[in-house]
Parts: sequence; structure tokens; C-alpha cells
Amino acid sequence: MSSAAPRTTGQDQLWSVDEHLDDILATVRPLEPIELQLLDAQGCVLVEDVTVPVSLPPFDNSSMDGYAVRVADVAGASEEFPAALEVVGDVAAGQADLLHVGPGQAARIMTGAPLPPGAETVVPVEWTDGGLGEGPVTGMRARALSPDGAEGHVQVYRPAEARAHVRAKGSDVRAGDRALEAGTVLGPPQIALLAAIGRATVRVRPRPRVVVMSTGSELVQPGGELGSGQIYDSNSFALTAAAIDAGAIAYRVGAVADDAVTLRSTIEDQLVRADLMVTTGGVSVGAYDVVKEALSYVGDEDEPGSGIEFRKLAMQPGKPQGFGSIGPDHTPLLALPGNPVSSYVSFELFVRPAIRTLMGLDDVHRPTTTATLTTGKALTSPKGRRQFLRGTYADGAVTPVGGAGSHLVAALAHADALIVVPEDVESVEPGTEVEVVLLG
Amino acid sequence: MSSAAPRTTGQDQLWSVDEHLDDILATVRPLEPIELQLLDAQGCVLVEDVTVPVSLPPFDNSSMDGYAVRVADVAGASEEFPAALEVVGDVAAGQADLLHVGPGQAARIMTGAPLPPGAETVVPVEWTDGGLGEGPVTGMRARALSPDGAEGHVQVYRPAEARAHVRAKGSDVRAGDRALEAGTVLGPPQIALLAAIGRATVRVRPRPRVVVMSTGSELVQPGGELGSGQIYDSNSFALTAAAIDAGAIAYRVGAVADDAVTLRSTIEDQLVRADLMVTTGGVSVGAYDVVKEALSYVGDEDEPGSGIEFRKLAMQPGKPQGFGSIGPDHTPLLALPGNPVSSYVSFELFVRPAIRTLMGLDDVHRPTTTATLTTGKALTSPKGRRQFLRGTYADGAVTPVGGAGSHLVAALAHADALIVVPEDVESVEPGTEVEVVLLG
Repeated sequence: MSSAAPRTTGQDQLWSVDEHLDDILATVRPLEPIELQLLDAQGCVLVEDVTVPVSLPPFDNSSMDGYAVRVADVAGASEEFPAALEVVGDVAAGQADLLHVGPGQAARIMTGAPLPPGAETVVPVEWTDGGLGEGPVTGMRARALSPDGAEGHVQVYRPAEARAHVRAKGSDVRAGDRALEAGTVLGPPQIALLAAIGRATVRVRPRPRVVVMSTGSELVQPGGELGSGQIYDSNSFALTAAAIDAGAIAYRVGAVADDAVTLRSTIEDQLVRADLMVTTGGVSVGAYDVVKEALSYVGDEDEPGSGIEFRKLAMQPGKPQGFGSIGPDHTPLLALPGNPVSSYVSFELFVRPAIRTLMGLDDVHRPTTTATLTTGKALTSPKGRRQFLRGTYADGAVTPVGGAGSHLVAALAHADALIVVPEDVESVEPGTEVEVVLLG
Repeated sequence: MSSAAPRTTGQDQLWSVDEHLDDILATVRPLEPIELQLLDAQGCVLVEDVTVPVSLPPFDNSSMDGYAVRVADVAGASEEFPAALEVVGDVAAGQADLLHVGPGQAARIMTGAPLPPGAETVVPVEWTDGGLGEGPVTGMRARALSPDGAEGHVQVYRPAEARAHVRAKGSDVRAGDRALEAGTVLGPPQIALLAAIGRATVRVRPRPRVVVMSTGSELVQPGGELGSGQIYDSNSFALTAAAIDAGAIAYRVGAVADDAVTLRSTIEDQLVRADLMVTTGGVSVGAYDVVKEALSYVGDEDEPGSGIEFRKLAMQPGKPQGFGSIGPDHTPLLALPGNPVSSYVSFELFVRPAIRTLMGLDDVHRPTTTATLTTGKALTSPKGRRQFLRGTYADGAVTPVGGAGSHLVAALAHADALIVVPEDVESVEPGTEVEVVLLG
């Protein structure tokens, strides 16, 4: 490696935001699928078509608490002329041995219990006297309190058609049906279905493990005492939270001092638990830009995918960026600039889509919309750079918060949107329609 | 307790959906705040106004990699007639001992490093020869590779105004400013700000611990073998996932058999880790409705807040519901019906708002919108009941998925919205505008 300072060759090559993003998305591949317990798979993408092994419901069953009877025995029943039937016992949900319902008989049946042999229909308990002989009731007495409730006689006050209040076997899904397609994101209702068809585990792309590391000798951990020239480390906290928000399992590494050997060994150490590494700081043109220094050693021309490229982007904030892969598994690494706003905006634009690509999601980007710029004076933006200003969005209007400075963390904390000013625009008048990234 | 079967008194009292919800929201109180580590507080609601203890930035610092100089020394500088200055050393970020920049001198300065005494402005390295004497450069050589870079002379090709590329102390936030207000939900940018002002911990309402328990002797855990009359437990999985989705820490208890003593002791066991308990099944009018049976013993008239009330709601699905509180801490408990769709819809309507109320969030409900009903034939709905049908929503239109049956889990898994049919509507024609709850 040459130790000469980089020289200006007319104009530095500037990457556009889209070129950098395209390069990241073309490089990062979805993680290999693994079999996970259902609840561990929440939020993950299914990679198999799941087929129904057994019909739902698996058997004809009652949708009501009531009496399983024969249709003919309750035909013409009314409050004036009830049908009187002999109660032969209970059919509870989960009961394996079913009694037989013969002519003139009824079995007390509970919601979800199998329709017993001989029975053709179910009359709800509210259509009966509940075996008490004192007119219509609104429910049954608890079995535990009244063990004789399953004996004696019941009066039925209304007729029922065949298979009334009966859920037919397979009426939800049939064995052999496709329950869920590969590519489905597993939320609570999908987990409900998988459990209902008996799946304890499922094959999905796991959540990516993202290691977040900030760099800078000036960084002190929050809660510590600031010395002269020092500031608190905020990037490692913000980006760990943002990685979790994007769907990752995130590991925060404390800030690493500006020493290439230490940084290099910390990164190598952490590789074992990383599907993606994110660093902040040390990527610009200074003499202590240690991420650039440490990772520029990594590339081996004979070993594809083991080098980090440092670039200048036509973007504000976030001009200096590094991207590539590192280590034996070619773990992708994004080296973000160190200013808090720069690193957060870079995360939203580049790291979040990378995380969601690792997850196998189709929808990797934040939603965007257009909004009317509401502000007292025109926004200015440097020529040739795509600018991302912080703003608050509501009801089709967006208002800038704070200025363009990449150190303005307080304004960032009060924003919920990024206002996009294109490369060829240097001034945006109030009232203009602008593109907005919704930070959610 | 009377063991008489409940009798019909003309008409059962029906609670409306809104009455039941109002009762829940009037009873459930936000959890007591606790001090949490920043990253543990993600997604939580701040309960204190946070004041800035030290200005950000804490000192004037450079926004560029370049040279700290005096204004007069670079006045009139150009590529043709550069200003030649003596380089007196480096000022790196985090450096405590600062050199003094005198007339005719320059200090190499890094982004974020304090402006050294004597210096009045910063010229970016790209406006200089980087000390090489060979025209403009694009960056500095790494200090580690070229330790003599901080010595010798530098040529500066452009003038700089006073305090150019200098971020003033306090230009982000000033000591004594309010950083964040009580009530703020802590996302990544808010965590960034808290870390930046040195807060390691913060006072928030914690995530509620929600214990989810399904009941039913017919339930088999997914992965097991179904016997006669048995089905798989899906509710405990679905609602645990839904509780996590709502922001809770959720504990899934395996399905409990229909035995009041066992259920009662399981609930008492679990109370120690519950801020909210959710059960499914056993709340209707059958003889084996064990939740109702077990929890009806709980209430002590002299002990407020320790009883569960079982109700019928003017709602489909989800008519039978229980709500109240239990145990020495009056832990709120929602007893949902056992049909998978009933329990899921009940969760969305009642448990999710309860969880979000415990978190102290203002916004406890799912978003709703109106949509055009897209379907081949009219929807029918029982009179006097608010019906929640499953549907898919896109671009202002909603299409029903599956039927009204509360056992249709497969359809639920393909829905992303609930179609609301009001109590007084019995039929909805295609093309009608309907209210929709977005589950997304």
C-alpha cells in the first residue's frame, strides 16, 4: 500500500446514493434458512411452502354449548310443545370415547366437542330448559358443581336442521391444502395457523445478528465524566436501537479508540457473532481515520469479497462511506461516518435495507411520500449532492426541524421524516412538493 | 355461589363493544416507572422531562479534516498565491492537551477535534497541499503511516472566514435546555440524544409482562400427536406473538386442562410474573367452562378489584368475555373466548389497548380507515351485534377473506384487516363504504 496522500485527479469520483445502495443490495444475500421454534420465528420470512397435514377442524364438532340430537326428534318443537329427550351423557371437548345418540335421546355437548355418532345436529342450550324443566335457560350448570346435569331429561323448544351448529371436518383447511406460501412474513395470525395445523417449528431466514461499533478516542460512555475535548458515544446506542427496530438481533460494542491495531482485532473478535458489521467514524480524509486505515489492509486481491471500499457519496450528510466484506465468511461491513446525524441517516438509507435483505424481506425500504414544504424561508442545498434534511411530517405537510448540520442530534430526536432535496436542486421554496422518507 | 343454571330474564344484558372496552381502559392503569438502561428503554414512554446537563457540542470543534489557522494568515490565498504556514502539530478528536496556533502557523485538525487556542478558523484539507508541496490533495495521510505529516509547512489555496467549519459550543443544545419531554416514546433518535447528553439510564414505564394461557382438555401442543377429539393449541402461540407485537414481554404458558383447581393454581402460580393475564377458552355457557368456574370463586366483595366479571358482548365473534382483576396486586385479567378467531379478534380489540395503556402510550388503538367493500355478494351480519369480518385491505378497498366462522384460522392468516359491520346493519352491499381496522 502506498503511503502517498490521495491526489486530486481533476474531480474525485463521486458515487450517487443510488449507486452505493445498489452495490450494497447486489452484494448482501439473504441469510441461510434455519428451523426455528414458532415463537422464535415471529417477524421472519418463511422459506418453505407449508402444507396442511391434517384437516381443520380434524372432526365434525359443535360450534355451540347445547345438545346433540337427531333432527326428527326435534322437528316441530316449540315452547308450547317442546320435544322431551332423554339425556344420555356429556360430550366435552377433548373427549375420546363418545357415547351414541339414539332416537329420543340427546347428549349434552360442549363447543368444540366432536359430534357423537347417531347425532345429526346441535341445539344450543338457550333453546332448551337445560334439563331443569323450568323453561328456557341461558347456560349450563358447571359439571363440577352439578354432576347430575348430564342425566335426566331435556326439553327442546326449537327444531334444528341437519348439521346446524356443526363445524364440518375440513371446513377451515383440508389436508393437502397449502397453508402458507414461501415468502410469507410470520405475524401472530400466521403463527396461529401454523400452530393450529400442528407445526412446532418452521423453516425461516433468521434475524440477522448485527454488531455495532463506534470509533473515536474522544468518546466517553454515557454516565461517565467528560474530560477536555471529549464527547459522549451516542452512535453505538442509536444504531443498535435502529438495528433492533429494523428486525435484527443487535450487539453493541463499546466505542473503540482510534488505533488501527485495536480496532482491527476488535472487529476480528466480533466476527464470530456477526452477520453484518456496522462501524461509525474514521472513514473520512483525516490523519486519524482509523477505520479506513485498519480496513484498507484487509483486501487480498486473490480473495474475493474481503475488502472494504471507501467512497465519497454525492450526499449530505453522509459523504464518506465504506462498504465491503470482511473475514473468512465475507461478512458484510458498512463503515458509516461518525457525526451522529450522518451515521443515523446513513443507517436509514443503507444499513436498514441491508438488514432487511439479509432477512429475505421484499420490502426493504422505508415508505416515502410527497409532502408540501412548510417553512418560513427557502431551503438551500449544495449543488450536486442529495440532501436529507430532518423534518416532521403530518397530513401531507413537512416542516424542517433544526438545520443541515450533521451534529444536530437534538433536532433529529424531534424529527419523524427525512426531506429529500435532489442533486440538481439548490433551493426549495416554501410550498414546494418534496419527497419525504417516513421514519415511522 | 348458587348452583342453579342461569335463567333467561326476558333478555340477557348485552354489553356493547365500547362499554366493555371503556370498562377495561378505566380499570387498567399505566405501570409504575422504573429506571432502565438506555437500550432496555427502547419503545418505552419517558416519564420525566430530561434536561441537558452539558451543552452540545461541549466545546468549539472542527466540522472538517483540515488545518486550524488564523484568518489573517489565509486572507487572499489562492492556488496561484498560496499562503504558506508552519505546521505546529496535530489536533485529534479526544485530544486533551492543545497546542497554540500563533501567527503564520497552522495545526492539522481532525473532524470533531477542539479548535485550538489561537486558531480562528478551519480550512479543509482539500483547500491545501496537505504539506506535500505538490498542489491540492483530497485527504491526509494516516498519522500511523506518515508520522511526519504534522510537521513542516502547508500551502493553503483559499481564504476562510472567521469560524468557518467550526461547530460552536452549544449549537446543538445548551445546558439547561429541555432535551425530551415526559411522554416521549423512545426510538433510536431519542436514544441518540439521551446518549449524546450523557444519560446512561432513563426513567420510563417498563414493558408490561403478559402471561398468556390457553385452556381446554382437547388441546395438544404443536408437534405432538392428535388423539381422537383433540386439536392443536394455537391460541397461546398466537396471543403470545400478538402481545410481543403490541410491545409486551410475553410468557406463554402451555395449555391447561379443563379442571378448575389446576387452572386456579396455575393462574396463582403465574401471578408473580404478570402485569396482565390473558386466558382463552372456558368463558361461555357450557358445563365445562372452567375459566368461568375457577375465577367466579375469586371475588371477595370486601376486597375491591379481585373478581372477574363474565359478560356477553353484542359482538361477533367474541360474544363471551371475562374481565376483572385477580390476586393481591389486583392484576388485570382478560378471559377471552376459545375459538381461535374469536380470541385473536378479542385480543386486538381489548388486550392490545390494555397492554398499550399499561405502557403509558397515548395511542393505544390500531388505526382505522374507511374502505370500499369489494365482494361478489352482500355481507350478512346478525342484528344487534357488531361484526368483525376478516379482510384484505389495499388502496382504499377491502375484500373479505373466508366466512364469518370463528374457527376459520386459515382465512385469518391471510387477512390484514378487520371489516366492521355496525350493530344496526344486517346486510352490506358490495361497493358500500365500510369501517376497517388495519392489523398491519
